[in-house]
Amino acid sequence: MASVISGGDGPRRRRGGREAKRSGANAIARPFVQPTRHYPPVDLASSEAVEQIHNASLRVLSETGLNVLHDEARMIMKRAGAEVSDGETRVRFEPELISQAMATMPARFTLHARNPHHNLIVGGPQMVFCQMASAPNASCLDRGRRSGNQDDFRNFLRLAQLHPIIHATGGYPVEPVDLHPSIRHLDCISDLITLTDKAYCVYSLGKERIADAIEMTRIAHGLSQDELRRRPSVFTVINTNSPLQLDAPMMQGIIDMASMGQPVVITPFTLSGAMAPVTIPGALVLQNAEALAALAFSQMVCPGAPAVYGGFTSNVDMKSGAPAFGTPEYMKAQHIGGQLARRYKVPYRTSNVCAANTVDAQAAYESVFSLWGAVNSGGHMLKHGAGWMEGGLCCSYEKMILDIDLLQMVAEFMSPMTFDEDELGVDAIADVGPGGHFFGTAHTQARFKDAFYAPILSDWRNFETWREAGEPTAMQKANTVWKQRLAEYEPPALDSAIAEELRAFVEKRKAEGGVPTDF
Amino acid sequence: MASVISGGDGPRRRRGGREAKRSGANAIARPFVQPTRHYPPVDLASSEAVEQIHNASLRVLSETGLNVLHDEARMIMKRAGAEVSDGETRVRFEPELISQAMATMPARFTLHARNPHHNLIVGGPQMVFCQMASAPNASCLDRGRRSGNQDDFRNFLRLAQLHPIIHATGGYPVEPVDLHPSIRHLDCISDLITLTDKAYCVYSLGKERIADAIEMTRIAHGLSQDELRRRPSVFTVINTNSPLQLDAPMMQGIIDMASMGQPVVITPFTLSGAMAPVTIPGALVLQNAEALAALAFSQMVCPGAPAVYGGFTSNVDMKSGAPAFGTPEYMKAQHIGGQLARRYKVPYRTSNVCAANTVDAQAAYESVFSLWGAVNSGGHMLKHGAGWMEGGLCCSYEKMILDIDLLQMVAEFMSPMTFDEDELGVDAIADVGPGGHFFGTAHTQARFKDAFYAPILSDWRNFETWREAGEPTAMQKANTVWKQRLAEYEPPALDSAIAEELRAFVEKRKAEGGVPTDF
Repeated sequence: MASVISGGDGPRRRRGGREAKRSGANAIARPFVQPTRHYPPVDLASSEAVEQIHNASLRVLSETGLNVLHDEARMIMKRAGAEVSDGETRVRFEPELISQAMATMPARFTLHARNPHHNLIVGGPQMVFCQMASAPNASCLDRGRRSGNQDDFRNFLRLAQLHPIIHATGGYPVEPVDLHPSIRHLDCISDLITLTDKAYCVYSLGKERIADAIEMTRIAHGLSQDELRRRPSVFTVINTNSPLQLDAPMMQGIIDMASMGQPVVITPFTLSGAMAPVTIPGALVLQNAEALAALAFSQMVCPGAPAVYGGFTSNVDMKSGAPAFGTPEYMKAQHIGGQLARRYKVPYRTSNVCAANTVDAQAAYESVFSLWGAVNSGGHMLKHGAGWMEGGLCCSYEKMILDIDLLQMVAEFMSPMTFDEDELGVDAIADVGPGGHFFGTAHTQARFKDAFYAPILSDWRNFETWREAGEPTAMQKANTVWKQRLAEYEPPALDSAIAEELRAFVEKRKAEGGVPTDF
Repeated sequence: MASVISGGDGPRRRRGGREAKRSGANAIARPFVQPTRHYPPVDLASSEAVEQIHNASLRVLSETGLNVLHDEARMIMKRAGAEVSDGETRVRFEPELISQAMATMPARFTLHARNPHHNLIVGGPQMVFCQMASAPNASCLDRGRRSGNQDDFRNFLRLAQLHPIIHATGGYPVEPVDLHPSIRHLDCISDLITLTDKAYCVYSLGKERIADAIEMTRIAHGLSQDELRRRPSVFTVINTNSPLQLDAPMMQGIIDMASMGQPVVITPFTLSGAMAPVTIPGALVLQNAEALAALAFSQMVCPGAPAVYGGFTSNVDMKSGAPAFGTPEYMKAQHIGGQLARRYKVPYRTSNVCAANTVDAQAAYESVFSLWGAVNSGGHMLKHGAGWMEGGLCCSYEKMILDIDLLQMVAEFMSPMTFDEDELGVDAIADVGPGGHFFGTAHTQARFKDAFYAPILSDWRNFETWREAGEPTAMQKANTVWKQRLAEYEPPALDSAIAEELRAFVEKRKAEGGVPTDF
């Protein structure tokens, strides 16, 4: 790809620049545009090193293999040519089998939202920013930390809908444990569909839940089953049970989603020093082996099914075993994960993560390091883009606003510039001349309103004014902002027939008792 | 340059990896190593766009020109072929004159410290991290913000000496206004030489001060004048008076430093929307015009003199005129500034800056965005690497510790990895097998102590433990750390004859009354 930043790319491109900023601090009024990388991703490791990881992971797959804890999955693998012994869970794959399967995986696909303006390209130079997912706790400055619940769950979805920089939700931002597990998915998916009109992610927690999720998505998009199969409209994340285990709900998820043409995001949970080798190259070998096995499996289920290579390799605190995020090791793994995905010509998923307990400097630096790695590595799908705290154990209202600001800054950094006579400003410089200033010039007047990104949180007042204002931190400002934003929320339009069909489906399934909860 | 990360680069390289981490949280025990970039810098703009900026800035130099407020400088320029009219300050340069002059500027040079282990390569894949400079105020959590003074000045130098990740001081970290301006430079340079043994920067504030600085450097290094002329040992920063003015002290600085073979870091102060056009391409045109004029001038004074292309372009808050730092616009300017420096094959200086008033999330994200830009842009010299707050108006003890941590993380990210059988860990993965863990394995045991970077500030305890500990923020932890570190300070060795010669020189110059203060 040429490393080009140039203007004149038409209205879509320019909306990402000027118009995005016109609204000043009002992030809600930004256009919905996927940030597009105009320079090649950074190759941190040599191509030889990438081949070494690739070959080492193929050795793991053929010599050690994985345990696949799902009978049907093993049958499908065996039928495709994998080495499976009767009565044993271990499966081994020869390199050719992996490369054949990987060859059918698409390099990019469109992820449809029920509002077509929110459709997303996954793959190529575009990025998708998703909201954080799966926190057991929620927190805000006013009320502190509490267990996940439906109120917070819904508020986070509203914030996702309000901010165009959040392109998709990414699962349940917080787990609403006040809803019974048998019917939780029905209420949650109903909220994902009605409180937002953006693409969403569902959990692979058994056949029944996935069936419900797919049916609710079909209803929401007003499609037939056949139409849905040809249109990726809901995705799931498949975490391997590292090291080298693919458990039953996850295999079921790949089978059910891939066979319905819906994207699976395969993400090994390879924490270096715990579930993966203590070296980053070794952890990447394990990540790659597990990702290849599960991605190849998705193609054995349904050749051409959309899928994403997920990297989540990070390190742990070797003193306590606690996972660390946004570290130098995490950045290295992010970069090389991207190189591996490019080697296979498949979309790459990474994350915006931190281990901080409060929205302080640590939360910010770990997150920006993660974003640096995500952009440089050519990440296509950024999971946990907004809200993530405590290594994923908490979704914070204030962190969500901070992350929205960070994501907007990243998008602004990635937005192209125009290099024409007017923007180069030689005449403006001549008009001002030595010793003058540009404050009041025509060149400035014509542009000053939308010249620069207007941050949500950055306090650029001088020290004295800031002190008089009570010395607010970014976290305190974020606390004010999320409440203002929520007050502006309006639910997105939804066809009343679809709303009614959805309501009736949820009611029927609840009347049936939802799903068994002994998985 | 090949984008290679590979091992086996010998002891110097590995010290940057393993041994750097062995000390755990003790950042003081790290080795002194310049971080080395193993991948090509990022070309954010197309080569066509870079040529457009180049050509536009040459037009500015030939059509509008600059005001040069120094008679001798104008004479030197005229003699070299510039268009200068008698009695006028305006000077115009034809493109060929600029390109001829730029051709003699070295692509890299060694900046010598009085301790040769602290010598630095400026240019190439290495980076130099300098401490912040020129703050009028100092601050810490205990005593708040106060005017710069000698106590804080000296403490900051001690922190620079204590931390190997700070490769050079960068001027006066804080301005000690309790010292009379006539003799301030004598005391300060004496401290720079005796409290640290690292390379340092002096101010271009008139002929006498530079002469004193050069003489003190000559004494400190134990050199003759001729030897010093061949050995870059002290540098200065030349800020243009944007737009398009080169004032007297700065021109004098270039003349005196370049003629003594000492490096000048030319840095236009081009704030987009204020002293530079409101467009980033326009601000870069002005930056480049001013940088080229002053760099070319350094070569007219002394062909082959070491010099550095400095980029400092940022934007202002268009509502208040306040300068902003670490913004998306700043990152864009950093990246393209690096491309321009590469076009001229000269070293590039950039900065680690923020506009925050306290060491909160804003301070961290603006700084990490700056570091992202500095690394991606191929920056060689990072000024204001540690301590910078409030757009440069304050040097903070806590921010200095935060920045030291950030710089160490950046260095760790840049450190090369080894991809051999042992690090790839295929056997370790086979030994653990599916469903196991790597905590106690031999592969882990052999490496766990120095496997990962041990951060200074990051709090990786779980939420409950952190809450019981009083919910410390990163800023509060930094407050504890800098006091512990200062308690460990010991002055570096200095030959007693040199110390005595230096003392005598300062005494003599003070007895003479120092320098006039009516500049």
